[in-house]
Amino acid sequence: MHIRRGFTEFMEDLVRQLREFAKERDWDQFHSPKNLAMALIAEAAEVIEHFQWVTEDQSYNLPADQLAEVALELADIQIYLIRLADKLGIDIAEATKKKMAINEIKYPVEKAKGTNKKYTKL
Amino acid sequence: MHIRRGFTEFMEDLVRQLREFAKERDWDQFHSPKNLAMALIAEAAEVIEHFQWVTEDQSYNLPADQLAEVALELADIQIYLIRLADKLGIDIAEATKKKMAINEIKYPVEKAKGTNKKYTKL
Amino acid sequence: MHIRRGFTEFMEDLVRQLREFAKERDWDQFHSPKNLAMALIAEAAEVIEHFQWVTEDQSYNLPADQLAEVALELADIQIYLIRLADKLGIDIAEATKKKMAINEIKYPVEKAKGTNKKYTKL
Amino acid sequence: MHIRRGFTEFMEDLVRQLREFAKERDWDQFHSPKNLAMALIAEAAEVIEHFQWVTEDQSYNLPADQLAEVALELADIQIYLIRLADKLGIDIAEATKKKMAINEIKYPVEKAKGTNKKYTKL
Repeated sequence: MHIRRGFTEFMEDLVRQLREFAKERDWDQFHSPKNLAMALIAEAAEVIEHFQWVTEDQSYNLPADQLAEVALELADIQIYLIRLADKLGIDIAEATKKKMAINEIKYPVEKAKGTNKKYTKL
Repeated sequence: MHIRRGFTEFMEDLVRQLREFAKERDWDQFHSPKNLAMALIAEAAEVIEHFQWVTEDQSYNLPADQLAEVALELADIQIYLIRLADKLGIDIAEATKKKMAINEIKYPVEKAKGTNKKYTKL
Repeated sequence: MHIRRGFTEFMEDLVRQLREFAKERDWDQFHSPKNLAMALIAEAAEVIEHFQWVTEDQSYNLPADQLAEVALELADIQIYLIRLADKLGIDIAEATKKKMAINEIKYPVEKAKGTNKKYTKL
Repeated sequence: MHIRRGFTEFMEDLVRQLREFAKERDWDQFHSPKNLAMALIAEAAEVIEHFQWVTEDQSYNLPADQLAEVALELADIQIYLIRLADKLGIDIAEATKKKMAINEIKYPVEKAKGTNKKYTKL
């Protein structure tokens, strides 16, 4: 797949701003990869809470105010994801590109079509 | 904060490619927001597994092969995050920008400096 | 609610055996409450993986081999739950009893009937 | 390992009371295994939130009020675990016993001693 150059620049901007945000607050002492991995999953769970008691159909049609909350939860995930990658020296754009290529191989259309099976069971 | 235009384009590329990937495999039937929220947290847990038995110090220095695995797990999170946002009609760049502005207000430097307290307890 | 005495004894047995298991392997160094909380959520995610792509209806009727796997994942959660409680000096039977009483108050039948709303929104 | 008979009775009591609690509120419609798996991980994440920014050492010494909160979060996990097992027809005591026996085999003392490696890497 092809990723436009813009993304790298965007990520660089975001990485820089999140670094500054943490530095100003003297928060790097808390931002070990271990801790950021925990914060990341805690945010992913905030999303789960919005969907746990609704049906799949309802999950497509959240009320507007709830959707706005979910948007901010997704933002939290994006923020911690970038921050964790930064602390580990991982380039998310590069990794995403690589993973999408792997998925193409793991899930060839002719085998994966219409099934929800894991690639190990195809 | 300022987000460069490139990001929007990157996201549009990624959204488009992930849509195509799912469509070719007839996977939209499985990709309800509810299900994608579950897939997202399952990937976040894959990251946790790499960090659960190591110290914070060790979490900064994963062996190279393990770091490469973590990079692909972070990619999975990025992929599901984009896919979930797409299904909900959420613009991640916009939401991230908004959330970072909110965080500036929730965590003013003078109050948040050097503390790991939640904003509700500052 | 009423909890039979047997549970306390069961928990004591389990706590003791898990302590011994960890001690024999010199694993207490890894079993900080922080780490056990991570292990616990990683196991909860193993359960999620079994359910993320199936419908609610299908989730009632897993194939027998998959159900057997889920049973062992639930066991893992029970094990880490007991272990974490032990490390924190928490009595799970006592806490469960207390929480069930709280839930009775938070969710009175006449308000909670037939709704999936959180108690804060009743 | 040996599990005292009391546990089975305790579980039976708890299962029965949780069934009644749900039935009175007409909540069985929401309690599919899929949804309960989501509720379970959301509760596991509530525990994570208490530990994400503290060190391992600090995690042994939470302030009393926070420890009381964690106790109730652990209770929530126990409650959803029992409820999910019930909906799936799984006997947790039996599964726990089985899993502990498996762990004895997966992690023999002479290989597992003092290492945090997964059994697949021993």
